Amino acid sequence: MAVRWELIQRDPASMARRGRLHTPHGVIETPVFMPVGTQATVKTLSPEEVWDLGARIILSNTYHLYLRPGHDLVREAGGLHTFMNWPGAILTDSGGFQVFSLSDLRKITEEGVHFRSHIDGSSHFLSPEKAIEIENALGADIIMAFDECTPWPCEHDYAKRSLERTTRWAARCKAAHARPDSQALFGIVQGSTYADLRRQSAAEIVDLDFPGYAIGGLSVGEPKELMHEMLEITVPLLPGDRPRYLMGVGSPEDLVEGVWRGIDMFDCVLPTRIARHGTVFLPDGKMTVRNAEFARDFMPIQEGCDCYACRNYSRAYIRHLLKAEEMLGLRLCSIHNLRFLVRLMEEIRAALEAGRFAEYRREFLSRWHAGEEARRTGAKAGPAEPALPENR
Amino acid sequence: MAVRWELIQRDPASMARRGRLHTPHGVIETPVFMPVGTQATVKTLSPEEVWDLGARIILSNTYHLYLRPGHDLVREAGGLHTFMNWPGAILTDSGGFQVFSLSDLRKITEEGVHFRSHIDGSSHFLSPEKAIEIENALGADIIMAFDECTPWPCEHDYAKRSLERTTRWAARCKAAHARPDSQALFGIVQGSTYADLRRQSAAEIVDLDFPGYAIGGLSVGEPKELMHEMLEITVPLLPGDRPRYLMGVGSPEDLVEGVWRGIDMFDCVLPTRIARHGTVFLPDGKMTVRNAEFARDFMPIQEGCDCYACRNYSRAYIRHLLKAEEMLGLRLCSIHNLRFLVRLMEEIRAALEAGRFAEYRREFLSRWHAGEEARRTGAKAGPAEPALPENR
Repeated sequence: MAVRWELIQRDPASMARRGRLHTPHGVIETPVFMPVGTQATVKTLSPEEVWDLGARIILSNTYHLYLRPGHDLVREAGGLHTFMNWPGAILTDSGGFQVFSLSDLRKITEEGVHFRSHIDGSSHFLSPEKAIEIENALGADIIMAFDECTPWPCEHDYAKRSLERTTRWAARCKAAHARPDSQALFGIVQGSTYADLRRQSAAEIVDLDFPGYAIGGLSVGEPKELMHEMLEITVPLLPGDRPRYLMGVGSPEDLVEGVWRGIDMFDCVLPTRIARHGTVFLPDGKMTVRNAEFARDFMPIQEGCDCYACRNYSRAYIRHLLKAEEMLGLRLCSIHNLRFLVRLMEEIRAALEAGRFAEYRREFLSRWHAGEEARRTGAKAGPAEPALPENR
Repeated sequence: MAVRWELIQRDPASMARRGRLHTPHGVIETPVFMPVGTQATVKTLSPEEVWDLGARIILSNTYHLYLRPGHDLVREAGGLHTFMNWPGAILTDSGGFQVFSLSDLRKITEEGVHFRSHIDGSSHFLSPEKAIEIENALGADIIMAFDECTPWPCEHDYAKRSLERTTRWAARCKAAHARPDSQALFGIVQGSTYADLRRQSAAEIVDLDFPGYAIGGLSVGEPKELMHEMLEITVPLLPGDRPRYLMGVGSPEDLVEGVWRGIDMFDCVLPTRIARHGTVFLPDGKMTVRNAEFARDFMPIQEGCDCYACRNYSRAYIRHLLKAEEMLGLRLCSIHNLRFLVRLMEEIRAALEAGRFAEYRREFLSRWHAGEEARRTGAKAGPAEPALPENR
């Protein structure tokens, strides 16, 4: 089997687990956050920078790489790891999410999806078989089944028909998978925010027997309470000996809440996207270092932070770079935000090992929410900009 | 004295010298090329990357830092070295060149120059005293006198009046310099492309006795032959025990030709600017790796090159990054081009030491010019884009 997940420890107080994912490109400690390298590069960073901040697995996007530079070219280059010079593990999504969120004029049939490229308007067709062919060519350690990610809100009737098609597509993906010995194919549970549909989807997808399971169709605009409820319904239906991956989730509080509800893997563009707007994570919420109030602030972004940006540069310098549109500014904020999430997961793993995750979660969330609330109400300097949608 | 230049060896066949510049931030082997960090950052690179490619001195721009973030802020931060986290030496220009090339509505008087900011149109005044005040605040190891850089072509009468004002300004700069023990102030020879004016300017500026001398007002559009002629007239008039700096010059062939004519220091934005258009230096001329012909070329930019980009990435990957507008692409091309020039200077120094610089120059220029000519006439793949003005 290409990928094996090993359970190390269960949390007595929650669904959380401490585990270890064995892949052809190294061992990944879980729970884990995976930085996103959409176009075969984590935006603004070199692979060494991603590695040095502690990431050992990254995500890349099938839809984007299929359109540009093309999966045949990546295969010719020796696969995605070689092409982009990344020594760690890689997970590729199936392109389903982007087909439904980025492309134009899409038409869904039982066979697959016709769509037009967001780059040049050219016509394309993705099916379960085609998505797997692309993912086999890219050669990631973990590949995802081709699913339909329904928007929120979504009618019950449509969500049901969609999840049933996603199940049929998952079976076709499994049949089409040509490299099961070197790439693990994960199934994806859908069902929008309907408890009965989540149960139906989980049962159907688990029945197909995948080496890992993802929960898709969440963090697409629904209230957090609904997301938590869906996790609480879905996770117990997934086999306890397989890794569980919550797709497109990556704000600090969502990571903590996801682990609490039994999630082992996360990915999100949020840390790198807000970094490019000059917004950074702190233990007490988000701060926009681009703001004028930091012009003469010679402190690091976060005091005591061990990231490259905080060890070497002041808020004043980083703000100067952002105002002057110098790329190093985007890079320093990206490094800080990714290191913040990678360290958060390190702390969560340590708390799980020490049997004090419940306490860690309580303290982290209390500090985070109080700070975010204070910024929202103006009680605290440095209001963050409005939250961006947390797309994959 | 803040800076001392030590002569190591003279070339028997030319005006070239092998030397060593002792500064408060390290020893610089000369001849040397200085990467440009206009806004307190070498565009797209971290200080570690600039250091790792072998640079030990960089240039930064007084005009830009004065306007943004402001020299007071940089002084508060502990000076430019601390602000930008650069452990090596720094040279700042005086702002003269940018005032005459970038700003709007400038008005020159004997006292100084009134101009409007290219960023926000605000009104400013730079004089010799103000430029030195700013350079003292920035704290570079080498600072430049405030001069007028005349455009090309330029009337003899105007060039003469301008160089005489530049001389008077140089004397005022020297009088205003508040930190001669930690910062070396270099004088600048002007005189456009008139032999008599270059002689007059050199005599006047040398008479003021500076620890180093720059040649300004060249590489501003004049034919190469004229630049060479002006160097051949000016260099012998400069004291043999002081470093000589040719401002704004940085194409590979100009570096070789400049060293041949007795120049010790160079700077130019060319390597990083063309990198951002996907154009890279090769021993046989420039190549645009962004071109379609490199889509499936899995060779490094330059075979055998020891730079980070060539050791780890293919032309195909770098082209993909450039097409996808990913910043890592600009960074890899910038690293290659800067390493190319830094290595060129290493090779020149080694050739000088071995007494074979004449041979090195002949071989380098013959290969370079043949390749450039072949690309121009289409005899060779990969036509470079039209040459950009080689501004500082």
